[in-house]
Amino acid sequence: MITAVLLGGGNLALHLYDALQKSAACRVVQVYNRSLHKIGHLGSEVQITNDPNQLATADVYLLSVSDDAISKVSECLIGVNAIVAHTSGSATLEVLPNNGRRACFYPLQTFTKGLSIDYRTVPICLEAEREEDLIILQRMAASISDSVYRISSQQRQALHLAAVFVNNFTNHLYLIGKELCAQNNLPFDLLRPLIKETAQKIERMDPLVAQTGPAKRGDQKTLARHQLQLQDKIVKEIYFLLSESIKNTYKIP
Amino acid sequence: MITAVLLGGGNLALHLYDALQKSAACRVVQVYNRSLHKIGHLGSEVQITNDPNQLATADVYLLSVSDDAISKVSECLIGVNAIVAHTSGSATLEVLPNNGRRACFYPLQTFTKGLSIDYRTVPICLEAEREEDLIILQRMAASISDSVYRISSQQRQALHLAAVFVNNFTNHLYLIGKELCAQNNLPFDLLRPLIKETAQKIERMDPLVAQTGPAKRGDQKTLARHQLQLQDKIVKEIYFLLSESIKNTYKIP
Repeated sequence: MITAVLLGGGNLALHLYDALQKSAACRVVQVYNRSLHKIGHLGSEVQITNDPNQLATADVYLLSVSDDAISKVSECLIGVNAIVAHTSGSATLEVLPNNGRRACFYPLQTFTKGLSIDYRTVPICLEAEREEDLIILQRMAASISDSVYRISSQQRQALHLAAVFVNNFTNHLYLIGKELCAQNNLPFDLLRPLIKETAQKIERMDPLVAQTGPAKRGDQKTLARHQLQLQDKIVKEIYFLLSESIKNTYKIP
Repeated sequence: MITAVLLGGGNLALHLYDALQKSAACRVVQVYNRSLHKIGHLGSEVQITNDPNQLATADVYLLSVSDDAISKVSECLIGVNAIVAHTSGSATLEVLPNNGRRACFYPLQTFTKGLSIDYRTVPICLEAEREEDLIILQRMAASISDSVYRISSQQRQALHLAAVFVNNFTNHLYLIGKELCAQNNLPFDLLRPLIKETAQKIERMDPLVAQTGPAKRGDQKTLARHQLQLQDKIVKEIYFLLSESIKNTYKIP
């Protein structure tokens, strides 16, 4: 049984806690957070602490805190002879105390408070300084997910950037769509089935093949009218640039 | 029973045909297409024709052809005393022959060849010159969908523009994500669960609340590093503009 101490109390930490506690290969022996407020509800099932000097002994210390806090929080792990892994998509291993066993355990998913998720579908991307540690992390990851990858720091940073496009930016496009509806007294519900189908299509199709719309067709008349319809300057520019990018992709004049 | 002649042989037309043929309130009596090639497979169940002078008599003529073709194809309907409706999100009613019974029957969804869809979830947006015709179209729409809206031309054009953002542009962001993966020897499969969850979140959440990421957090360090990681000039600009737009939305300095 792999033992782990989890440091953090955010959405990612709490979803990870749930998944690990159900796994047969791993057990979380303690959860640390600076304030007990966010982890208090776990107190009946696991040891909790807000004292960085009272951390339990474990095989793995998992730091699931914001990027900026990794360095500071991990100070309490200086000299620890165990795997010290953060869960960040963008932080390097160098932000961790240099004990020769630094690692990353990055679940590539968006986690929302109160929304449960099937962790077995969440890709977990691993990196470790020591080969033996990677094997331990692989066992741990495989016990909660069916999709475990070993990737380099550079690959992880590219992945994190790609995630910004398909998650953060996509969500912002949903918001622009919602606002265009609101400006015309239309409910956002009108767009929800389209949003769902657009994503579902991609489960089986290549986005290169799935593309449709006026830019893809080179339909200049519609492109020009849409530009006129848009009032917000920055949204107008977004429309223009994304259309240009689509035209470039398909070599549309 | 409402009778309809369907004109067109594309994805939208064929999905609409399937839905209408299963409905209890409506029957497609004929399908017209310029070339029989695309509609030949329907020949055993419905009358098909490629001769615009041989159109059957019906209550409704549904033109499910590309925007540019509506005007030309509908020439064969000049003087017809029946509902003449196109299915376009962006065309005005004026492109149809002026028989005083012009209308629009716009299913707001993306239709893909070979991918079946639950038509009951597809919003259908209606517009008609004559109030009595609207009632007929409402009966027809309600017989295939649970979500029928009466909207104006202006609302429909706004909706079509919103659909470009949440469908066409979102799909292009998926492609950018895929290319960032490919450039780093990572499979696109890594992003698929995130894409799915990003869309699913929106089924119950407002996109304004669902937003996460470096721009929302005002995380300048990550924003700057991401910009450096991007090589393609236009993709770099897209990153910058979408980040600015997110920062503006949440008043992030």
